[in-house]
Amino acid sequence: MQAVEKKTKGPLNGVDTPTLFATIGAVKAQPELAKFRFRASNRWIAGTNSRSRMEAFQGAGSEHAHKAEYAYDADHPAVLVGEDRAPTPVEFLLHALAACLTAGIANIAAARGVKLTEVTSRVEGDIDLLGLLGISNEVRNGYQGIRATFDIKGDAPAQKLREIVEQSRARSAVFDVLTNGVPVEISIKAA
Amino acid sequence: MQAVEKKTKGPLNGVDTPTLFATIGAVKAQPELAKFRFRASNRWIAGTNSRSRMEAFQGAGSEHAHKAEYAYDADHPAVLVGEDRAPTPVEFLLHALAACLTAGIANIAAARGVKLTEVTSRVEGDIDLLGLLGISNEVRNGYQGIRATFDIKGDAPAQKLREIVEQSRARSAVFDVLTNGVPVEISIKAA
Repeated sequence: MQAVEKKTKGPLNGVDTPTLFATIGAVKAQPELAKFRFRASNRWIAGTNSRSRMEAFQGAGSEHAHKAEYAYDADHPAVLVGEDRAPTPVEFLLHALAACLTAGIANIAAARGVKLTEVTSRVEGDIDLLGLLGISNEVRNGYQGIRATFDIKGDAPAQKLREIVEQSRARSAVFDVLTNGVPVEISIKAA
Repeated sequence: MQAVEKKTKGPLNGVDTPTLFATIGAVKAQPELAKFRFRASNRWIAGTNSRSRMEAFQGAGSEHAHKAEYAYDADHPAVLVGEDRAPTPVEFLLHALAACLTAGIANIAAARGVKLTEVTSRVEGDIDLLGLLGISNEVRNGYQGIRATFDIKGDAPAQKLREIVEQSRARSAVFDVLTNGVPVEISIKAA
C-alpha cells in the first residue's frame, strides 16, 4: 500500500511518474509498442574527425523526430596523431554508460518515492593500443576493463540508495551492451 | 617497396602519416606507451537528463588534457517520458561505432596511399524495451542487433576500398567492445 501510495504521488526528481507508470501499463497491454530502432548517420570530415547526426527513431508504433537536431563530432587526440577536435569514440562509450545508469537511477528512485539530491559518477576505461595499432595480435582492440563509481545522495537510507543504483544496473541498456556484447553487421558500398 | 614509397609520401586524407608511422614505431620500441586510460565524469541534472565531461586522459606515459572542455548531455525522449534535451545514451553507442570505424578508415587509407573523397555511414540498432522496462525477464535490456552501412569513395578500386573498411573493423576499439563485451565494475557511495 505504501508503495502504491507513493507511486500515485506524482512527479519526483523531474520524472513524471504517473506518465511513466501509464507508459509501462500501455506497453504491457500492447508489447509491440516496446520495439524501438535508433539511428545515427556519420560523415567523415578530415583525418580522424567525423560527425554523427542522431536521426529520427522508431518506437511505440511510429517514427519520432528529436526535439532538436543533434550532431556530435569525434576525433583522435594529438598524442594519437589526431587534431583533438572532439573526444575519442571510446570516450563516448563512457558517456553512454554513465548517462544510461543515471537516467535509470532517477526513474527508479522516483518510482520508489525517493527524492534524489545529487547523483554523480566517474567512469574510466583502460585500453592498450598495442591491439588497435596492429602491433600485437594478443592484445584486444577495445577497453580491457571499465570502472564506474557512483555517488548518490537522497532522502533514503544508504542501503535503499544503493539498491536503486543496483536496479538501474540490472535494467541498463548500455550496461547490457557493454558487458554482454551485441551482434554488429557491417555492409560496405565502395566506389 | 611500393608500400614503403607510399608510406613516405606524407600527409593524406588529413592524416599525418609520417607522424602516425613514427608513433607506431615509438610504441613498438616502448610498448608501455600504448597503455591509455580514458575518463568521463557525469552529473545528474533532472529527470533522465545528465551531463558528462570528458576528462584528462592518461597515455603514452603521461596525462593529457583535451584541447577544449568537452561536455555532452543525454536524455530520454518524450515517448519514453523524458524531456528529449539530448539524444539517448544508446544513440551515443551508434555515434561511437560510426566514428571509430571512420577514423580507422581514414588512417588505414592514408597508410595505404589511398585518397578518400567521401566516407558516410548509417548505423541503426534494434531494442525491445520489454527488458529495460522490467516487463520481461527473457528480453535483453540492450540492443538486440546493430547494423552499419558504410559508403566509401576514393581513388582506388572498389575492392581496395572495401578492404580498408574491413581492416578498420578488424582494428576498431568500439567494434571490439560492442561485439565482444568488456568487464564493467560498478562501485557505489551512498549517503
